[in-house]
This record gives sequence, C-alpha cells and structure tokens, in this order.
Amino acid sequence: MEKNIIIHEVGLRDGLQNESLIVDTETKLQWALELANSNLNIIQLGSFVNPNKVPQMADTDKLFELIKKQVLKTKFSALILNHKGLERALQTGVDIICTGVSASNTHSLKNTGMDTETALETVIDITKIIKEHNLDYQVSIQSAFGCGYEGRIDEGKVLAIASKFIDNGILNISLADTSGYAYPEKVRRIIELIKNIEPLVRITVHFHNTFGLGIANTIEAINSGAEVIETAIGGLGGCPFTKVAAGNVPTEDFVNYLQRKKERMDISLDSLLNLSKKISIYLNKELQSYTFKIGKFKL
Amino acid sequence: MEKNIIIHEVGLRDGLQNESLIVDTETKLQWALELANSNLNIIQLGSFVNPNKVPQMADTDKLFELIKKQVLKTKFSALILNHKGLERALQTGVDIICTGVSASNTHSLKNTGMDTETALETVIDITKIIKEHNLDYQVSIQSAFGCGYEGRIDEGKVLAIASKFIDNGILNISLADTSGYAYPEKVRRIIELIKNIEPLVRITVHFHNTFGLGIANTIEAINSGAEVIETAIGGLGGCPFTKVAAGNVPTEDFVNYLQRKKERMDISLDSLLNLSKKISIYLNKELQSYTFKIGKFKL
Repeated sequence: MEKNIIIHEVGLRDGLQNESLIVDTETKLQWALELANSNLNIIQLGSFVNPNKVPQMADTDKLFELIKKQVLKTKFSALILNHKGLERALQTGVDIICTGVSASNTHSLKNTGMDTETALETVIDITKIIKEHNLDYQVSIQSAFGCGYEGRIDEGKVLAIASKFIDNGILNISLADTSGYAYPEKVRRIIELIKNIEPLVRITVHFHNTFGLGIANTIEAINSGAEVIETAIGGLGGCPFTKVAAGNVPTEDFVNYLQRKKERMDISLDSLLNLSKKISIYLNKELQSYTFKIGKFKL
Repeated sequence: MEKNIIIHEVGLRDGLQNESLIVDTETKLQWALELANSNLNIIQLGSFVNPNKVPQMADTDKLFELIKKQVLKTKFSALILNHKGLERALQTGVDIICTGVSASNTHSLKNTGMDTETALETVIDITKIIKEHNLDYQVSIQSAFGCGYEGRIDEGKVLAIASKFIDNGILNISLADTSGYAYPEKVRRIIELIKNIEPLVRITVHFHNTFGLGIANTIEAINSGAEVIETAIGGLGGCPFTKVAAGNVPTEDFVNYLQRKKERMDISLDSLLNLSKKISIYLNKELQSYTFKIGKFKL
C-alpha cells in the first residue's frame, strides 16, 4: 500500500500575507476550522514576524489561542524567522514550527536582514531549541530552484545547506520554490541528491505557479520521494504588487489530482470548494484554482 | 542525445473554433507566418468541416492557398472528419491530414453524426486514401481519457481502437483529452499499453487544461514515449459557452519548460509572446498562458 501524501495548507499564511486586504481574526478562524474539517493534515495559521512589516499576520498569536480551544486532530503550524519569533511561537502552542533559510543571499538579506550563512546558524540554533521543547519542526531551503533577485542558484549551494542541516540532525527539510523557477527534472535531481546524503530525510515541497509548472513539479516531487506537499486554498499567494498569477499550487487542484487516483479520498473536496467560494467573495477576486473555476470532477 | 520533441501548434484551429469572434483570413495568415517563423514544427491552419456548423474555419481552403505561396519549412496540417473534408484537403495541399475517432459514442455522434464504430471504419478508409496520395496523416483517439458526456471511458475501448488502427497500418496515433480528464498516471498507462501492442507507433498527445493538469500530463507523456505534442498559443481553446479556463496547454508555457532544460532552443519564445500579445488584443481577452502573463524566464 502506498504511503498517504500529507498536505500542509499554507493559504492562511503564504496566501493572505500577499493580500492588501487584512482578513479579520474571526474570519480566519472560521476558514481554519473549515480547512481542518475538510481533513487536511497540517494548517499553517500565520507567522510570528514583525507586525509592522507584515500586518496581515499580526493576529497569529490570537488565532492560535482561539483555535486551540477547539478539539481537533489537525496540526497547526506557524512560520518564524528568528529567536524573537521562536519565543512567541513557544508561548502560543504551535504544533509544528516552520523556519528556514534562503539559498539566495540577496533574498535572505531582504527577507530576514541576515545573509545566508548567518541565517543558517540562526536556524540551526532555533531548531535545537524547538527539539528541546519536544515540538515538531520543519526547516525550509527557500529559493532552492532559483531566485527572483539573483536568478540562477548553484545547486551545490542548496546541497551544502541541506548537508549542514543533516549534520545537525535536522531531517525535516522543505524545498521552497519562492520564485516559481523549478521544473520537474531539477526537482527530481535535487531531491535525489539530498536523499543520497541521508535517506531518512523527510522532504516537503512548496511550489509557486509562476510559469504554470507548480502541479507538474509537485507530482514529480512525490515520485522522487517527497512526503509532505504545501499547497494553498484557491491558489492564493504571489506578489500583491504585480498582476501576475504566481500563487501557490491550489489545494483543490492537488486534491482533485490525488482523488482521480483514488488517493486521499478522506479529504472533502466539496468543503474545500465551498471555502474557496467564500474566500473569493471576501477578497473580491477571482482565484487561480482550475477546480474552483470548473467544479468538482464527476466520474 | 535526446530526440527533439515535435510541437504541433493547434491554436488557429482548436483555439479559434471556440471563439465567438471570427478572425479574418489576412490576420490568420499573419499569425500563421509568425508561428512558422518562431520555428514550431507543424501548424494546424484549420479544418475542412461544415462551414455552417463551424464558420470560424470556413476560410481554411483560402488560408492554405495563401500560405503555400510563401516559402517555408514548416508543415501545415488540417483536421477533417469525413470523405467530404478529405476531398477538400486533397485539393488544398495540406502537408499533414489529421482525422480521428472518439472513444465516446455520444461524443462521436455529436461531433460527426457517426457512432464510434462507423467513424472508425470511415477513418481507416480515409487514412488509406491519404496514404495512396503519399501524404502524411495523423489519426486521433478523442475522449481517450474520459468524456464530458459519458464520463468514464473504458481503457479497453481505447486500446481496441488503437489495435484496429495498428492492424490497418496506422501508426501515427494521437491521444486527445478533449474534456481535460487525463492525469499523469493514466497517461503513462495508456501510452505504455499502446506501445506494448506495437513499439513503432508514433504517439502524439493533445491535452486540455480543464483541471490544471495539462502540462503535467504532457511531461509524463513525453517521459512515456510521446514524440509529438499539440499545444495552442496563449492556451486558446475550450468551450466559448462557459467561462471556464479549459483551453489547450499553452505553447509558450510548454516551450518555456523545454527551454528551462535547454531543449528546443531553436524556438523563439520572444516571437511567441509577441504573437500572444497581438492575439490577446485582437480577441480582447486575457489569455491563459502563465508565461504570457509573467514574461519570459530570465536566467
């Protein structure tokens, strides 16, 4: 029997942080509950970052407090970038703390104020503390397939970061295609090279759809051994300052694909499509998901 | 060295036949010349079908006459459904005559007025005549992965049609996903089963993007042995009577993918994107192609 693919829903974080409209906490809570009820495995509620820089995520602490009062089997994650974020995450009851480092020095500096090397040391130290608290973690390598600022990213650099993680006992590694530059052959190559270093690594992938290759990359990643897939409801995400459809892989499209193969039939695609509709109305915009546009597959 | 993938551009036929606006012949000619100059291998100019039913294609004869006056290395194809269309195609100097049969009886009746069995006999007879004229041909199995009317299509039925073609010496077979129901694992399975019957079959694929799986299906088809890929500039295609994004795989997105791997660097993506812009303006609509929206990949 095949291993079930784990879905990590990041729309409430990587999606909403890119919307100019700030979604109120009660609405986010309702959306998170609907996502949980549709049977997705992990839901990223927000990030513990500077609220002046990312006001859309300022209520992440509050959101955790509210959702933890509900009885749910779902795990909730949050993104942090530094020790300050870690402190807030530890106080909030996050199930999975996500952090990471960008393989692009320019992206790293813009995103965290640290160069790649400094960010790497920080992330290793943070992960050590997370483990000491017996919490689950995930560490990503951002811009792993190319960078919007730097262009090409040397694969050797990506592998060096992965090696450093592995040397420090960090085996939950996410490969993030921040700029949408990945293509299936490169995805397979990088995953296989990392698995060659340490077969026990658990690979997560996170693809943006900038050039329309998001779902093709996701499928190839699964076929290369990735176990956790990050997607966003409606295909939310991308830069709010361009009109470009560069969001995440839409959760509904990915679930539609899995269910065509009779996998993850426990997920309610109907619930996801209902929620997409609400989100589309709330944000007053068309969503990128194909399945949202055409409706559930009938066979 | 890998074999080069052959691109068969079908936007001027499968795309424009779905537009309510009828594009004038001179404009079509200009677009066809630009497609040819961008170095695509085969360009489908139109179809020889009933002009009352498909007025968008009524000028196909004229278009061939005009384009054949130009000196070009590109091959031009046209679609026919019956002997009447064949007659027109033979008089017009078509390089590759495309015909086909639907694996769905309902689709076959609606599309051609013939049931699958009758259409199959017709297509076999037509192909015999094409071969007698020493012309190139391509025979497709439409609704090969499912049908908008009938839903599930038995794979055995698809294989029976392929076998009948092969028995009659028809080795250029196109698998068409008319309704966008294909997914990569099914694509691989059907191609491998047909190749098992006759390894010399040359497989073409034609995917619609209804559920966002078009390019993933295309990539898996190539990895399973498909040699010719049908795409449409801008992702044109789909039903004009719904608002759904269900067009063909966009040529620009497919070329972008190939060129990320340094394949088909002879194709001018710039020319394709220039043309998409003109088409978008002429049709006064947004095109589905991601690469058209974001621009050429810079690395």
